[in-house]
Amino acid sequence: MSSFKIERKENLTVLEFELSSGVITPEELKTINFDFDPVKEGITGSLVVISGRGPIWLYCTLNHILHPCKGVGIYDPRLGGGVVVQSHTPEWSVGDIIPLE
Amino acid sequence: MSSFKIERKENLTVLEFELSSGVITPEELKTINFDFDPVKEGITGSLVVISGRGPIWLYCTLNHILHPCKGVGIYDPRLGGGVVVQSHTPEWSVGDIIPLE
Repeated sequence: MSSFKIERKENLTVLEFELSSGVITPEELKTINFDFDPVKEGITGSLVVISGRGPIWLYCTLNHILHPCKGVGIYDPRLGGGVVVQSHTPEWSVGDIIPLE
Repeated sequence: MSSFKIERKENLTVLEFELSSGVITPEELKTINFDFDPVKEGITGSLVVISGRGPIWLYCTLNHILHPCKGVGIYDPRLGGGVVVQSHTPEWSVGDIIPLE
């Protein structure tokens, strides 16, 4: 359904998804758990910023799958960075903006 | 920043938010944890469908706060229902569409 590009930076990971046909059906969500595992990818020790064009329910599914990570941010192009939506470390708080170039 | 309307149905809760000025800043996310608690609201035993006009990072923050609930869905007006994005019960699976009138 889609490809995931994982860009590792210091203490930060950018997870960018691209939908192969530009769209995705809810049915395809059922396979994401198997396509992508943050533990296997070795990114649980960082804040992961999700980026890509897709529906809110795709973002929310990824957000939940990334729960084992130190934190999750959502890239907002209008803000030029990732907005932290969950954090399990004092390093970041929900609502913080992580600048991305 | 916003108001939450909680509509309880059988085995299902609709959480509808409305942003007071139509917009929200990431800074305002810092207060949501205190404004809204699914345990205090007594909705952890149901699937909660989030609905409203707002940024993806607001949805993802609510999605994470609702983790103690049986499941979470995201309302998609094009699909006429809530798409399940997390489930902790065999009743629903991620990707299921819960019809809402």
